[in-house]
Amino acid sequence: MVELTDRLVIAGEALSSRLILGTGGASSLAALEAAITASATAMVTVALRRVDAAAGQPGGLIDLIDRCGVRVLPNTAGCYTAAEAVKVAHLAREAFATNWVKLEVIGDDRTLLPDAVELVRAAEQLVDDGFVVLPYTTDDPVLARRLADLGCAAVMPAGAPIGSGLGITNPHHIRLIRQVVDVPVILDAGIGTASDAALAMELGCDAVLLATAVTRAQDPTAMAHAMRHAVTAGRLAAGAGRIPRRFHALASTPDEGRPDL
Amino acid sequence: MVELTDRLVIAGEALSSRLILGTGGASSLAALEAAITASATAMVTVALRRVDAAAGQPGGLIDLIDRCGVRVLPNTAGCYTAAEAVKVAHLAREAFATNWVKLEVIGDDRTLLPDAVELVRAAEQLVDDGFVVLPYTTDDPVLARRLADLGCAAVMPAGAPIGSGLGITNPHHIRLIRQVVDVPVILDAGIGTASDAALAMELGCDAVLLATAVTRAQDPTAMAHAMRHAVTAGRLAAGAGRIPRRFHALASTPDEGRPDL
Amino acid sequence: MVELTDRLVIAGEALSSRLILGTGGASSLAALEAAITASATAMVTVALRRVDAAAGQPGGLIDLIDRCGVRVLPNTAGCYTAAEAVKVAHLAREAFATNWVKLEVIGDDRTLLPDAVELVRAAEQLVDDGFVVLPYTTDDPVLARRLADLGCAAVMPAGAPIGSGLGITNPHHIRLIRQVVDVPVILDAGIGTASDAALAMELGCDAVLLATAVTRAQDPTAMAHAMRHAVTAGRLAAGAGRIPRRFHALASTPDEGRPDL
Amino acid sequence: MVELTDRLVIAGEALSSRLILGTGGASSLAALEAAITASATAMVTVALRRVDAAAGQPGGLIDLIDRCGVRVLPNTAGCYTAAEAVKVAHLAREAFATNWVKLEVIGDDRTLLPDAVELVRAAEQLVDDGFVVLPYTTDDPVLARRLADLGCAAVMPAGAPIGSGLGITNPHHIRLIRQVVDVPVILDAGIGTASDAALAMELGCDAVLLATAVTRAQDPTAMAHAMRHAVTAGRLAAGAGRIPRRFHALASTPDEGRPDL
Repeated sequence: MVELTDRLVIAGEALSSRLILGTGGASSLAALEAAITASATAMVTVALRRVDAAAGQPGGLIDLIDRCGVRVLPNTAGCYTAAEAVKVAHLAREAFATNWVKLEVIGDDRTLLPDAVELVRAAEQLVDDGFVVLPYTTDDPVLARRLADLGCAAVMPAGAPIGSGLGITNPHHIRLIRQVVDVPVILDAGIGTASDAALAMELGCDAVLLATAVTRAQDPTAMAHAMRHAVTAGRLAAGAGRIPRRFHALASTPDEGRPDL
Repeated sequence: MVELTDRLVIAGEALSSRLILGTGGASSLAALEAAITASATAMVTVALRRVDAAAGQPGGLIDLIDRCGVRVLPNTAGCYTAAEAVKVAHLAREAFATNWVKLEVIGDDRTLLPDAVELVRAAEQLVDDGFVVLPYTTDDPVLARRLADLGCAAVMPAGAPIGSGLGITNPHHIRLIRQVVDVPVILDAGIGTASDAALAMELGCDAVLLATAVTRAQDPTAMAHAMRHAVTAGRLAAGAGRIPRRFHALASTPDEGRPDL
Repeated sequence: MVELTDRLVIAGEALSSRLILGTGGASSLAALEAAITASATAMVTVALRRVDAAAGQPGGLIDLIDRCGVRVLPNTAGCYTAAEAVKVAHLAREAFATNWVKLEVIGDDRTLLPDAVELVRAAEQLVDDGFVVLPYTTDDPVLARRLADLGCAAVMPAGAPIGSGLGITNPHHIRLIRQVVDVPVILDAGIGTASDAALAMELGCDAVLLATAVTRAQDPTAMAHAMRHAVTAGRLAAGAGRIPRRFHALASTPDEGRPDL
Repeated sequence: MVELTDRLVIAGEALSSRLILGTGGASSLAALEAAITASATAMVTVALRRVDAAAGQPGGLIDLIDRCGVRVLPNTAGCYTAAEAVKVAHLAREAFATNWVKLEVIGDDRTLLPDAVELVRAAEQLVDDGFVVLPYTTDDPVLARRLADLGCAAVMPAGAPIGSGLGITNPHHIRLIRQVVDVPVILDAGIGTASDAALAMELGCDAVLLATAVTRAQDPTAMAHAMRHAVTAGRLAAGAGRIPRRFHALASTPDEGRPDL
């Protein structure tokens, strides 16, 4: 089956996949490894908090990621203020030896949606501190442009609350974001199933980040396969120039040449 | 990339693909051949009317289909009465040497939606005449069950009017159909882009039939690739046990083990 | 508050309301009477089966309807074949002294959706027998036109299964029906809340029939009031020429005259 | 027709209508006056820029508003920074002799969506300055709660871009906002037709603000009537306890007592 050949490029680095996988929610390291392999992802996100003593051991999470040969994107999950997120980002830079960070500054623990004001503050600081900042943001096009303008390497709008599986609750806003920023747009959070991921790409996103949809599916490996195909399908479709929507039908077979009965 | 291994079985015959391609609307035979190859379809539909003198010549449509090694599913496109459709089906059986027929009995030329009453009449006759009947039907679950009960080998509900690209206008009805028939359900008509095809499979369809979405896309080959991935994605997702939809968020990274800052 | 002045006309008879109320599901006759009054309906449907000995007594259902001064539209709820529905219609004509009938021929007891084939058969018979036939039909535009063409006085497409509260699952089909029939289109079944009823009218329906949404609401009288307003709102909006949908914004306040700060 | 009796209360003031009307886009003062009357609104918004010499003259906009007996809510339309919006708010306080202000700080001129960061800044300043601040905000629940927490008297989330007529593009976010703030939630912007306004109220909004949907409709007076009914319908429905959504049908008429045929 034909694969995508155009690469996702973030901050000058090309990635071989447009699917980014979160590592949270997996039932075991073995399940996670199977999902990573099946998804063919080239980058996984890891929360600093998950990197405790066990994670660093042989056979731990870090080991697994190394073995899979994928890039690590540390995230600041669980931070509720700019100050906290900036601190975690710096710790992560040491721990993972990478200046890339998925910046999360959460507004409340029920929706886990970003706090716009604190997010901008943290992003400004981290850009100043030399990080490659990929902010998890709301689907607000004005905020997305502000983040891009201040130097973020990508913007990662939420399709819906993390883990909700609601898909993309506001496709119109994702389209608007695509129009107003020049950096990659990565749909992050809300994806429930394969068609959601395909839709994200068709709306113009450059990549999709998901975790729960795969790690908590009944068969994570099968869903990881599905998501790989879905992202490829959506990307190809986005470039193929779809037919316009029509209120009435358009016969695929013209009326001429109809046999005389 | 992992492929589907479970086969679509219609009337006891296994097909190697869950994507059925219509041949109408292609700009040229070369474009059609490229799309067939890219889609990896195992069966194409052909309207009898398209099989004129030219089609039978070397280098014509029949030749192309033979060369691609795909099965032909003749259709009765353009028929407005049961009598007409039955006649065309018989002619097609002779012309294509197959007793399979995609039965279309159209109600009007603006929507090209099926005429329920004439469709049932034609299906009854053709089943009696020994055909393997695959009726293009409305998304009405009661009608679908009636068609299955009278011996149709599959049911092919419309997602939306032919060529409209509106996708699946009533997912609820497709789900209902899936519950009430035991034969394969093939989403037929309305598909505009890849996510529509993935959704069809997630709703429980066994296959997707589409023509215009590929043949009239700006880049039919790319869209055929996209559709192939989309059908695979949707099928895998349908079997993977998706996460439930939740109103609020569910953290992928648990709160325990958060670093003490 | 301004009321609608254009009347719903069915078979030459003008009705003072575009809301038709079903009487099933009410917790008591008193609750039903309050709902009828609050809705300002001019016609209620009654299943023949409900008209048992008790219904005919003083203080029974028939008495209540007389007292409310509304028209009765008998229905053939619970009939699964044309023969059965025709019989019930004739019994109802005797019992209620009206040749109007809401024709229901149900396909199965889980969806309670109409059976297209039996419905057409029953409608033909009842039109021949001199009834004013209002068929509860699917949202299939071809079937709706067939029913109108054979002499039905209105068509009553389902928005969604009876009692489901799903609203209008396929607005596109309701629009298509509005285009292809000249008789009144009455949205029947599926309505859950006020905005559903308003939408039905905006899609071009001439009236809305609902029962469960009012009779099983926690406060049936309040919901009846809501539905009255909703139908009026939708009807007025349908005639007011709504603004077009735009992808981007359109400032309501022009930029000229902006104060110089 | 029954009217709502529960009042919208903002900052301790009760208003007799839950529909707030913008004055922009009207073709003439006469058209505007007719719309105000038909809508039965109790408060209209006016952009300071519209209050030029002409507006203050006898027969001008101010005169019209006085004559209609409705409250004025000055807005800061057209402001792109906090500083600008604060200045305009102060000018408006002088001009209109009211400390109420609808605070708009726009992020860009294509979407006219709010700029979260500047909006918060301006809101903080104006609350400090003793204004009753009603901010036009995004549909972001975290931002809405922040605005409520800093002392805004209401929050006014956008349903869709101003003048777009797209309705409520993200009902899920409106529900979330309703859950997390204690001040009135007023749906502001995006409304295209009556069912949109009814839906806003059903989602839990306390009021709806709209302009273009009425002023630019083909018949603004009829649409104003429609909106009045729609807001009432939605409010009543929200309080009436709607039936739950069900996948299958629920017969309104029980099977018992079915006549024996």
